[in-house]
Amino acid sequence: MTSQTGGRRRTASVPDLVSGARAGDPRAVARLVSLVEDESPWLREAMAALAPHAGRAHVVGITGSPGVGKSTSTSALVGALRRAGKRVAVLAVDPSSPFSGGALLGDRVRMADHATDPGVFIRSMASRGHLGGLSWATPQAVRVLDAAGYDVVLVETVGVGQSEVEVAGLADTTLVLLAPGMGDGIQAAKAGILEIGDLYVVNKADRDGAHQVRRDLRTMLSLGDRREGDWKPPVLSTVARTGEGIDEVAEQVRAHLEWSTSTGSLAARRRRRARREVEAIAVASLRGRWAGLHGHASLDALAEEVADGRTDPYAAADRLLDAVP
Amino acid sequence: MTSQTGGRRRTASVPDLVSGARAGDPRAVARLVSLVEDESPWLREAMAALAPHAGRAHVVGITGSPGVGKSTSTSALVGALRRAGKRVAVLAVDPSSPFSGGALLGDRVRMADHATDPGVFIRSMASRGHLGGLSWATPQAVRVLDAAGYDVVLVETVGVGQSEVEVAGLADTTLVLLAPGMGDGIQAAKAGILEIGDLYVVNKADRDGAHQVRRDLRTMLSLGDRREGDWKPPVLSTVARTGEGIDEVAEQVRAHLEWSTSTGSLAARRRRRARREVEAIAVASLRGRWAGLHGHASLDALAEEVADGRTDPYAAADRLLDAVP
Repeated sequence: MTSQTGGRRRTASVPDLVSGARAGDPRAVARLVSLVEDESPWLREAMAALAPHAGRAHVVGITGSPGVGKSTSTSALVGALRRAGKRVAVLAVDPSSPFSGGALLGDRVRMADHATDPGVFIRSMASRGHLGGLSWATPQAVRVLDAAGYDVVLVETVGVGQSEVEVAGLADTTLVLLAPGMGDGIQAAKAGILEIGDLYVVNKADRDGAHQVRRDLRTMLSLGDRREGDWKPPVLSTVARTGEGIDEVAEQVRAHLEWSTSTGSLAARRRRRARREVEAIAVASLRGRWAGLHGHASLDALAEEVADGRTDPYAAADRLLDAVP
Repeated sequence: MTSQTGGRRRTASVPDLVSGARAGDPRAVARLVSLVEDESPWLREAMAALAPHAGRAHVVGITGSPGVGKSTSTSALVGALRRAGKRVAVLAVDPSSPFSGGALLGDRVRMADHATDPGVFIRSMASRGHLGGLSWATPQAVRVLDAAGYDVVLVETVGVGQSEVEVAGLADTTLVLLAPGMGDGIQAAKAGILEIGDLYVVNKADRDGAHQVRRDLRTMLSLGDRREGDWKPPVLSTVARTGEGIDEVAEQVRAHLEWSTSTGSLAARRRRRARREVEAIAVASLRGRWAGLHGHASLDALAEEVADGRTDPYAAADRLLDAVP
């Protein structure tokens, strides 16, 4: 692969990037993540080279409504993990920005504490939406960071719409953040977050209403139908700004990993994740082939027939499927 | 098709349902929408029968953050459209509830004004997510309501994550609701709503800050790169609770339909919509075939190999695609 300028920067092959990333070179890691973002033709080769090294990192999803203190909490958790000697990668995914990347720049600034630490890798990604948002690119970026040898990969996403469900789908451990004064009690039930959290953290615990949020959350969690032997999600309290309670969060994140490893729940969750990933890649590949069709089986021709009422969308879909070799 | 009890209710064939719906029987319409929701095997036959009748309704998307007064505004708009002699269908889609249907029950109660009006059909749908959320089921439900002969189909959805982008994708005219005091000025830029609205309505215009929201919105809209001849989205003000300003909204909705019809923009938008619909059905069909695979090309077997690092997700996706006839 040649660099974009062709000038000063040297050509780097995929094997070079993979060995560079494995040796801890953050620039090599960053370029591999860019292959994912850019849907590069080199991605396939990179993924094949990375596959044998993946599956070792603990993937932790962090989600919560805007304003609960996600970035501050993530930054504090990175600190706690670093004190425990872990190498940490942070992937910040913004599902609300299908139109433009870099929306999390402001948040990233708050992660400045770790910007010069070689044991921490930080990257923002906008989920562009055209290949299925989080579902296509994020698992592959996680796979890159995992294979690069980070002990923990933190995937931070704004909890809106189905994004928190998606982040839960790709994490080994999902941490749901709440805060007082945000109507989160009601939001919790609505957005289905009660079914996705392995840990619940009430941040800004020094503010009025934190006790109420914890109590509401515990009540709602107790109503769920968990079976004997299931993990019982703890409800923790933090003041991420000062670091209060963060060590306990890191401890419970580790405890959940141990529990899920010993019960086989982790392996099952990773198989489900791999399954979705394979499906998403297959769908993306087919979309590419469909987009290349011409003539009366092209998507445009089929769409025109459907829009005119000359055919129905099912019959059109059949013709599309028949037309792809 | 037999009824679920097999007892008192009589067997209704798909042609019966289609002719019933076309004749204005709300129960027939409701059962056809249920075919969509249930992913019924009869759906294909129903869609083929409905196809020639579709394409006449004006599909209007209504989106906005929680709390801007979506249901009240929708209800008021239904009233205005009824006064203009239009038959109206309302489809309320809740993208934040992948786990349970009926989440909008509370909102539906507020639509009680129109519950007994035979010219109004109201239906809530939870987008369950497993077939791609809004993208799969909603266009088909819209198609049913369109073919059933409603003049206007209002699709109301909570503007979170990418749902507002999706609702814009399936509507002829998209109405974005805002309200003062919700930090919507910032939210607007973030969520990309500036690129999707054909009309912007600042509801709760009698409250402090409404003027500011309108001004911010107009400023941001003026920064977008619209070309000569493009539709210039108006910024309107309402107090939906009292009906103030609603007639002007109905008037502008009609004006946008006229503009988009005369410029060809409507036809282009509908072709894009049909294209996405055909793609979504084709993908859903393939997912069904993949789920039926057994042996070493089954998704479970492939997922296990990927999770173990024995293969990479691309190679696994290739094997999946090769295995489907």
